[in-house]
Amino acid sequence: MPEQHGLTPTMTANEVNDLLKQVYPQLNEQYDFYRVTEVFPGGCTVRLNADERHLRPGGTVSGPSLFTLADIGGYVCVLSHAGPDALSVTTNLNISFMRKAEAGPIDGHCRILKLGKSLMVFDIDIVAGPDRQTVAHATGTYSIPPKRQTTR
Amino acid sequence: MPEQHGLTPTMTANEVNDLLKQVYPQLNEQYDFYRVTEVFPGGCTVRLNADERHLRPGGTVSGPSLFTLADIGGYVCVLSHAGPDALSVTTNLNISFMRKAEAGPIDGHCRILKLGKSLMVFDIDIVAGPDRQTVAHATGTYSIPPKRQTTR
Amino acid sequence: MPEQHGLTPTMTANEVNDLLKQVYPQLNEQYDFYRVTEVFPGGCTVRLNADERHLRPGGTVSGPSLFTLADIGGYVCVLSHAGPDALSVTTNLNISFMRKAEAGPIDGHCRILKLGKSLMVFDIDIVAGPDRQTVAHATGTYSIPPKRQTTR
Amino acid sequence: MPEQHGLTPTMTANEVNDLLKQVYPQLNEQYDFYRVTEVFPGGCTVRLNADERHLRPGGTVSGPSLFTLADIGGYVCVLSHAGPDALSVTTNLNISFMRKAEAGPIDGHCRILKLGKSLMVFDIDIVAGPDRQTVAHATGTYSIPPKRQTTR
Repeated sequence: MPEQHGLTPTMTANEVNDLLKQVYPQLNEQYDFYRVTEVFPGGCTVRLNADERHLRPGGTVSGPSLFTLADIGGYVCVLSHAGPDALSVTTNLNISFMRKAEAGPIDGHCRILKLGKSLMVFDIDIVAGPDRQTVAHATGTYSIPPKRQTTR
Repeated sequence: MPEQHGLTPTMTANEVNDLLKQVYPQLNEQYDFYRVTEVFPGGCTVRLNADERHLRPGGTVSGPSLFTLADIGGYVCVLSHAGPDALSVTTNLNISFMRKAEAGPIDGHCRILKLGKSLMVFDIDIVAGPDRQTVAHATGTYSIPPKRQTTR
Repeated sequence: MPEQHGLTPTMTANEVNDLLKQVYPQLNEQYDFYRVTEVFPGGCTVRLNADERHLRPGGTVSGPSLFTLADIGGYVCVLSHAGPDALSVTTNLNISFMRKAEAGPIDGHCRILKLGKSLMVFDIDIVAGPDRQTVAHATGTYSIPPKRQTTR
Repeated sequence: MPEQHGLTPTMTANEVNDLLKQVYPQLNEQYDFYRVTEVFPGGCTVRLNADERHLRPGGTVSGPSLFTLADIGGYVCVLSHAGPDALSVTTNLNISFMRKAEAGPIDGHCRILKLGKSLMVFDIDIVAGPDRQTVAHATGTYSIPPKRQTTR
């Protein structure tokens, strides 16, 4: 599968989880729903442990819950590969929903398509259910702020 | 602004708010964050009263919160114009984030671009701040389930 | 309709047409299919005079032809509002096709949603037919290269 | 890479090339620019042999040329996996451009994310250059018309 070569993460999954807890407490509030499960060169895996709170009419996991997983997947790619600047922001995200997902563990397999100086493009396959079928697929762009001067 | 002509809503904003509370309690849980403020022929206006819970690093309203507003805008268009079948689902949503939004009232101006038998396409301008600038813009598609037989 | 205020074009429609002919001869080759018809503060109108060459199976105007119109609409917005640097490039374009369009004049009404230093976001309503219904809608982002030094 | 299992193509690459020539002569007019190079279960590979005609300002392959390749990739997936009904149409296509591509062979690796009765969702990685880097990535949806009655 084509992707950008030569990328090296500078943070582990646990380090990113700790950073998220610190800079983005709203993400999980009192529960650990969204977690980084793996960071690897050129991508990451993120998980949503979906329960009843994430459902929509029809009893399936809601679009906003899956969007959040996709968005977090891109955020983790930026944090782990371009440095832990929490101020990177999404500029565009396109998500297609293909199948219904029931409550349970939902995994987002995320890869970096391009890491430039000011933009990162990624895509993510979101899989769920006993046979881990793709339930959604998203492509997005993060804007990376200019490196800030280190001052004393 | 071009749009589909000849559309007639069959529900008011209040009726849709009541329906949402009933079929989608997860949306607002114990608070009234997301509200329909207007339903008109060919579109609707939805509002997010964003507070600290909706912020992300940098103190601005998070992407998932704005995505939710966009998704709800499309859902309200379907419910109010194609009949109150809660099982319509998003098949695709593309959102661009243009400016940062601070906590406060955020309005989504939503119009139906096409209402067909099985698909509805909409777009939404999301505005915020004292001068109501566009902070995000989204386009999406809802799949409308076949009309169910009315049985006694 | 919300949009970015305070924008001022620096080129007219005719000036942009001349520029396109010079820097992008492939666009129209020997025919004048794609034209700028209007440049106004915050947007532009572009036209495709679709003939048989632009049709796809079913006898309707092809997706790539409408995509080209959308892409040109954004390009004209950049050229006319951010200066005639031909090297601005599309980074993302999302297009939805709503109705079939027959051969004939097809107009793209394009507005700038955000003009920043390095990115421009736009959307475009593409209308066709005797009642000028929306046949497609697109949202896109252009990357604007840094201003080049003027040297003698 | 997750995808839909159990798919079986019913046409070969050559059969699809012949069908395209017959139903969509505008695609290649007098030249063979766009070709199907492979059809396999769950996807296909398509190629654009880009020459000077496909370039844009800056001397790189234009967005519309890459969009066309993406759109054709999805069309070939539908034709080869859902039956040769030429009237399937794109309802949405989102494309991100990551790197510049020079003239030469450009390959689109296309996979079916979902093949349903009335919709097919696909994505495509477009690679080019001596090291076949990803230059663009797209996700799209095709609408499949209802099976037509075979009448004698």
